[in-house]
Amino acid sequence: MNYLLLLAYDGTNYCGYQVQKNGRSIAETLQNAMEAILGFRPDIKGCSRTDSGVHAEEFALNFRLETPLKFAVSKLPLALNAKLPEDIRVFCAKEVSEDFHARYSSKGKTYEYRIRNSSVNSPFYDKYETRVTKPLCIAEMQKAAQLFVGTHDCIALCSAGSSAAANGDTVRTITQCDVLQKGENVIIRITANGYLYNMVRIIAGTLVEVGLGKRKALSIPDILTSKDRTKAGNTMAAKGLFLCKVHY
Amino acid sequence: MNYLLLLAYDGTNYCGYQVQKNGRSIAETLQNAMEAILGFRPDIKGCSRTDSGVHAEEFALNFRLETPLKFAVSKLPLALNAKLPEDIRVFCAKEVSEDFHARYSSKGKTYEYRIRNSSVNSPFYDKYETRVTKPLCIAEMQKAAQLFVGTHDCIALCSAGSSAAANGDTVRTITQCDVLQKGENVIIRITANGYLYNMVRIIAGTLVEVGLGKRKALSIPDILTSKDRTKAGNTMAAKGLFLCKVHY
Repeated sequence: MNYLLLLAYDGTNYCGYQVQKNGRSIAETLQNAMEAILGFRPDIKGCSRTDSGVHAEEFALNFRLETPLKFAVSKLPLALNAKLPEDIRVFCAKEVSEDFHARYSSKGKTYEYRIRNSSVNSPFYDKYETRVTKPLCIAEMQKAAQLFVGTHDCIALCSAGSSAAANGDTVRTITQCDVLQKGENVIIRITANGYLYNMVRIIAGTLVEVGLGKRKALSIPDILTSKDRTKAGNTMAAKGLFLCKVHY
Repeated sequence: MNYLLLLAYDGTNYCGYQVQKNGRSIAETLQNAMEAILGFRPDIKGCSRTDSGVHAEEFALNFRLETPLKFAVSKLPLALNAKLPEDIRVFCAKEVSEDFHARYSSKGKTYEYRIRNSSVNSPFYDKYETRVTKPLCIAEMQKAAQLFVGTHDCIALCSAGSSAAANGDTVRTITQCDVLQKGENVIIRITANGYLYNMVRIIAGTLVEVGLGKRKALSIPDILTSKDRTKAGNTMAAKGLFLCKVHY
């Protein structure tokens, strides 16, 4: 039996999704709750490894059991949520086909990078956005964002320490890169078939530099063809990043 | 000299705007910061008395000084924010005419009541929304909401202990009462020239009962003409309520 879970989490107090030697991970916390309900710790396969401090509105994982659950799978979210801390919530559980794998079956993922463009931070949402004090030119950011769309070698948008880069597997297809303004918030929404290490945060940092007039929108193709990380912008802080949707 | 401040606050950890004997208030916390900057505690006039646990996206207040500030008024937000806790932020300060009064000059205020209509609470926004587990019929709520619009004696929408009710001052004009669906959130947005004690939370509680099929949309006029608090719905929790805008 193969089961899918969808969860949402506030990553502020976690070292990321993946189990780590030092620090509390989402995966370990979830396995603790599963053990409390099921009596054992299933092997869970996450859709991605979100980094320390990154949030998820929809994170998918699957786990296999030799024998079916002793209760309806639809009851699993309520049971797990009773054991989980308030900053992790399971909102869907269902049976999936035997060959489903949360990571390898995914056709792509949508992330949002959330910026507050204001001289004052929010008393409500400061954990979920990165503040940029100086005014951003949204139209320039939108022009630049469209130049990320397409199939590229994205190595210039990858931090050091990537296993994909070590394997020379750095071509990704970006199908959406939109910049949206909602009041004082600027949202960068990206959909791609896969991501390199810190790729969304580097794209966000590059677009912010365009918005601040520090670089031209038309410089984006040159960054990509340079294959040089130092040509792109800074890696933005983790707290503004949300995994929003996993596409199957 | 008369000055206006606009602030936003997360009311979770406060006993409300107004200074209270027991508990930390927004007003007192703000006066502490003002004293640190100005060297004395000005008398501040708030636009309303938000209750314990209620939030504000835009709260207005004014204060008078015998001598002008020794620095540009535009520098006041930054200076005050450095002294205030993170859950209160001043985002605007400006000089206003001598006769301006944050409460009496107001033509009306817009509040939002924010509901999460889901079996699962949010790991991000639980402090800012009240959860309703069973599905709400939004179309019925919208029909009912429109029946609150107009000039009415609103005493049926007023909790016990209201000084306005004691004075027989209970007629209010509601110019907007909209029910909006945004994903799993249902937002009740109300604009009126004034509010009785707990009025928005009672309107929200009444509309939720309509949404759950516990009462008919067409029962709203009967509630108003009854002038009987027991005919209206429950008072919803404080944490879903936001003061959004003060109109001058």
